Amino acid sequence: MNKEEYALIENYMRMCMEDSAHDQEHIYRVLYNALDIAKTEKNVDHDILIAACLLHDIGRKEQFENPALCHAVVGSDKAYRFLREHGFALDYAEQVRQCLRTHRYRRDLQPQSLEAEILFDADKLDVAGAIGIARTLVYKGAVSEPLYCVTSNGEVLTGENDTTPSFFQEYKYKLEKLYSNFYTKRAAEIAKKRQQNAVAFYTALYREVSVPYQTGRTELEKWIGNTEK
Amino acid sequence: MNKEEYALIENYMRMCMEDSAHDQEHIYRVLYNALDIAKTEKNVDHDILIAACLLHDIGRKEQFENPALCHAVVGSDKAYRFLREHGFALDYAEQVRQCLRTHRYRRDLQPQSLEAEILFDADKLDVAGAIGIARTLVYKGAVSEPLYCVTSNGEVLTGENDTTPSFFQEYKYKLEKLYSNFYTKRAAEIAKKRQQNAVAFYTALYREVSVPYQTGRTELEKWIGNTEK
Repeated sequence: MNKEEYALIENYMRMCMEDSAHDQEHIYRVLYNALDIAKTEKNVDHDILIAACLLHDIGRKEQFENPALCHAVVGSDKAYRFLREHGFALDYAEQVRQCLRTHRYRRDLQPQSLEAEILFDADKLDVAGAIGIARTLVYKGAVSEPLYCVTSNGEVLTGENDTTPSFFQEYKYKLEKLYSNFYTKRAAEIAKKRQQNAVAFYTALYREVSVPYQTGRTELEKWIGNTEK
Repeated sequence: MNKEEYALIENYMRMCMEDSAHDQEHIYRVLYNALDIAKTEKNVDHDILIAACLLHDIGRKEQFENPALCHAVVGSDKAYRFLREHGFALDYAEQVRQCLRTHRYRRDLQPQSLEAEILFDADKLDVAGAIGIARTLVYKGAVSEPLYCVTSNGEVLTGENDTTPSFFQEYKYKLEKLYSNFYTKRAAEIAKKRQQNAVAFYTALYREVSVPYQTGRTELEKWIGNTEK
């Protein structure tokens, strides 16, 4: 891929994602993660990989506007059309499309090429560690979901087995569990290093929040008598 | 304060802040922090302190709709009117008003009572440690500001001396510097314990983000030639 082709694809990505600064930052992290992973793999087609990384989330807007749509499927078709319209070869456009279709975890759609596996791992790495925590909190702010839920007797829930959306629920349901099942060894190594950053933050936040609720509510009852809230 | 008075004030707070789940969580954390701090201070008027904590941010909506307004001033007057309308004594309503007016850091408006000092410290504690990080990230998501800024040659800025709003900028400008100048010894102690949680998270996030930008951009140049972005 030459510099002009890169700029063409990058500009299309930026146009598709102009509404979200956070999503654009994510694209570059995924691209750089993927290039790092690719250094440890043999026979990677960098032209496919770079285009797939840049374009992997261009279907986000459509999914946001209609949650019944899957951004991986919508994005893969958009990418294919864009590449064909700009003179890229049919086989190349098809390979990029296949990477995009399988970048999201779904049992029925698993990566079928090395480049698709690297994209999957690079994208998953951006949910690991401190960056995964930061992105999840930013998302909770954007959709106005709480940090945690509190029981009727004032106990802060850990998020485990919780069904109400919150940051702690997302951590227990998704973030805590993602450190296995990478396709590449390099991604698994990076994830492992980042894992302690996420665990340390969750543990610290849970303690900072839950202890004051426990001691504070006991203290409050002394001053106002038993309270339901 | 009896249970009915507490419920009356709590309901008014909830009505004023019904738009924001995050803001309501904050109120209870401040209340519980304040009751913890109060245990180590002498002659605290808990009736003033509890009402001041519950009501301290009820002017947020007005400030959000008109940023020229200060929520501390607007909220203090709303609280005073509410308390007077519901039969609370003039001196009591005035004391609560004074706590609210000075809970936000301003050189010209400093706490004039022990209860005002405790509210100030309890509110400030909720910007310390992991909870301060979490709240700041949630806010950045709500207002769509980036996690970090990147220079034209692809270096992730630390946030130090940066003027463009981002999470790293807010961390360096505000979060990193707040661990001194508490009024009460107990608040300073709690803040000190939490400080390492914030420092560890910022350090981990900066490393997780900045290293891939460095190595990834070098790698990218190998595959597409020198690139401006």
